[in-house]
Amino acid sequence: MTSVSIDEAMRRAIALAARGLGTTSPNPVVGCVLLDPDGEVVGEGFHAYAGGPHAEIVALAQAGRRARGGTAVVTLEPCDHTGRTGPCSHALIQAGVARVVVAVGDPNPVASGGAATLRAAGIQVDLGVRAEEAEAGNVAWLTSMRRGWPYVIWKYAATLDGRSAAADGTSMWITSEAARIDVHALRGTVDAVIAGVGTVLADDPRLTARNLRDGTLAIRQPLRVVVDSAGRTPPAARVRDGAARTWIATAAEVGAGPDGRVDLPALLAEMHHRGVRAALLEGGPRLAGAFLAAGLVDKVVGYVAPKVLGAGPTALLDAGVGTIADAIELELTDVTQVGPDLRITALPRKREA
Amino acid sequence: MTSVSIDEAMRRAIALAARGLGTTSPNPVVGCVLLDPDGEVVGEGFHAYAGGPHAEIVALAQAGRRARGGTAVVTLEPCDHTGRTGPCSHALIQAGVARVVVAVGDPNPVASGGAATLRAAGIQVDLGVRAEEAEAGNVAWLTSMRRGWPYVIWKYAATLDGRSAAADGTSMWITSEAARIDVHALRGTVDAVIAGVGTVLADDPRLTARNLRDGTLAIRQPLRVVVDSAGRTPPAARVRDGAARTWIATAAEVGAGPDGRVDLPALLAEMHHRGVRAALLEGGPRLAGAFLAAGLVDKVVGYVAPKVLGAGPTALLDAGVGTIADAIELELTDVTQVGPDLRITALPRKREA
Ligand SMILES: NC(=O)c1ccc[n+]([C@@H]2O[C@H](COP(=O)([O-])OP(=O)(O)OC[C@H]3O[C@@H](n4cnc5c(N)ncnc54)[C@H](OP(=O)(O)O)[C@@H]3O)[C@@H](O)[C@H]2O)c1
Ligand SMILES: NC(=O)c1ccc[n+]([C@@H]2O[C@H](COP(=O)([O-])OP(=O)(O)OC[C@H]3O[C@@H](n4cnc5c(N)ncnc54)[C@H](OP(=O)(O)O)[C@@H]3O)[C@@H](O)[C@H]2O)c1
Repeated sequence: MTSVSIDEAMRRAIALAARGLGTTSPNPVVGCVLLDPDGEVVGEGFHAYAGGPHAEIVALAQAGRRARGGTAVVTLEPCDHTGRTGPCSHALIQAGVARVVVAVGDPNPVASGGAATLRAAGIQVDLGVRAEEAEAGNVAWLTSMRRGWPYVIWKYAATLDGRSAAADGTSMWITSEAARIDVHALRGTVDAVIAGVGTVLADDPRLTARNLRDGTLAIRQPLRVVVDSAGRTPPAARVRDGAARTWIATAAEVGAGPDGRVDLPALLAEMHHRGVRAALLEGGPRLAGAFLAAGLVDKVVGYVAPKVLGAGPTALLDAGVGTIADAIELELTDVTQVGPDLRITALPRKREA
Repeated sequence: MTSVSIDEAMRRAIALAARGLGTTSPNPVVGCVLLDPDGEVVGEGFHAYAGGPHAEIVALAQAGRRARGGTAVVTLEPCDHTGRTGPCSHALIQAGVARVVVAVGDPNPVASGGAATLRAAGIQVDLGVRAEEAEAGNVAWLTSMRRGWPYVIWKYAATLDGRSAAADGTSMWITSEAARIDVHALRGTVDAVIAGVGTVLADDPRLTARNLRDGTLAIRQPLRVVVDSAGRTPPAARVRDGAARTWIATAAEVGAGPDGRVDLPALLAEMHHRGVRAALLEGGPRLAGAFLAAGLVDKVVGYVAPKVLGAGPTALLDAGVGTIADAIELELTDVTQVGPDLRITALPRKREA
């Protein structure tokens, strides 16, 4: 076998990490590549699901004694605490690796400290290799850990002229089956789905992640969060069925903002507390407007159908913008055709406070 | 020199034809490649501007005596009538070509008959080589000639959530300078720009094709058409300045539809009569709605800015759609980033009568 560079190994580790996307939460995705002293790959691993072994442990098990004197290349700083698994820092020390190369430091106050522990044990620790790429792969988790509330993705579906239903309220289906399958896949990558009580009352959605062809539920279901100031969600609402956990977040429980409605920052803090790292805001237009107005949206995913209506409810309402200079600016990051529809991904630009 | 196949020659002729786009109207774009009896290229030409020499004449002039016994490869059936230039059919006969290969027949009742004339002179004529490609290059002209009214492109600018202005009516600028430059280039390729009197009253636009950097006018200006049932366009409206020709199309002149407003099919027929082959419908939302409802839009070009407003006028109104099943369906044909904005091109799907 040929030896690989640290940089190549990190690229590989980042690719491995990505395999865990959607199943590791509330943990981050992590990938690890172990090199022996000659730079040959002797172990590879990624964190596959919460409660499962960490990437380093998988790679060390594969490498066995060949890890001794070698280098561990990891996308995230090895953990230093005993959770459902033992601390990776100790495992790396015991395996006798000489060097640990890390892309991104762990912002988690509970788990961090791995680098310090390794250094104290005489191991060389390098931080920051391919950091940007590794950050991008873990953006939801890192963002939410750093600031203490979930990474929020606003998803909407609309026609080319921005309508989310026709004049008579019909909206089945604005977008194609391909787009709806894509949405269900997106739901499978987040820890919670958020909807306003207006949408629950109007559409009675299930908000589960399903296989749209046969209706079967995905194994892992996001928490369903209904933002419902006064607790108007009907007892028989589908969102209350047993298919997934549901939280009807009322102003009484969460606290109210100045307008008497659910305080959104408090809502997100509580969701974080409940282990939610990434959340999908699925509407409706008014709740989305409130999130955007408060600067609480991290990413926008729009499914735009190539049709026009010229009338009917719009995809977004009341985002606190009165004049064109105050428009909420986004930056396009991806435009992909999904079936006949367009999926437009964009990031809100940070605004001056 | 090496010889080229008929197919290659036609591909080249189609590319040559495209160079005339925007300057040949009310004539079509045409390209011609002349091959000598050995299949070597001995002449090339395209129709560059109305009143200028036809593609065949340019190519024949270049080839001189080398055209004798050769093959003319032309994107459109050679004309058979004496307009501002003599009939190309006669020129080809006089030059002694043995064969003429044509992509698309001429739908123009005045100019057609070229193939018959050539055949009567003993020249072999083949029709239909790379016809689809040649059609696409001439789509506006061919469509408008076949049915007797202009090819209509509806252009709009909107935010991602379908707004064309903010709540207070401000709209400068929804889209970027790059997108606006693109619009001015688009204006330069059509024969007329259409706007509703509502837009004229609200925005007082110039509707000219300009160089946005220095404000200079393009040499060729489209006819400005204001659809204005009762003649409400103010005497001092910018659209009446001397920068380009203007037609204030009133119901009195054009005729009225059942709603008393300008009859749109009659409007388009009159525009055709005035030599308009391609027209750009620039709004506003209500006139666009009326065009779409009547099935009079051939192509949609939307400039979508990556921003959201959540309030304000929408890009389209009153398109005659009441329920989702009646949505006006389009087919995406192109999505291109123009500066920070998206340019989305789509074709309305033909609807059952
Ligand atoms: N195209 C799409 O992607 C899409 C997605 C979802 C829904 N929809 C459509 O949207 C429509 C419903 O829209 P909607 O605007 O009425 O409902 P909504 O946005 O789902 O819910 C709005 C409601 O959320 C509650 N809420 C609680 N706290 C809030 C806060 N801080 N800020 C704002 N709202 C808060 C408010 O009711 P309380 O004050 O009672 O709590 C408010 O009326 C339906 O017709 C549905 O079909 C479209
Ligand atoms: N975002 C964009 O791309 C864009 C482009 C242009 C304009 N706009 C905005 O659009 C707004 C103006 O919109 P608007 O809807 O009031 O005006 P509009 O669509 O420009 O004009 C509508 C008017 O056209 C006249 N008209 C004549 N014949 C008609 C027919 N057969 N069908 C429909 N209308 C006919 C009608 O007035 P009469 O009955 O008096 O003739 C009607 O009120 C402005 O605020 C402007 O900024 C946006």
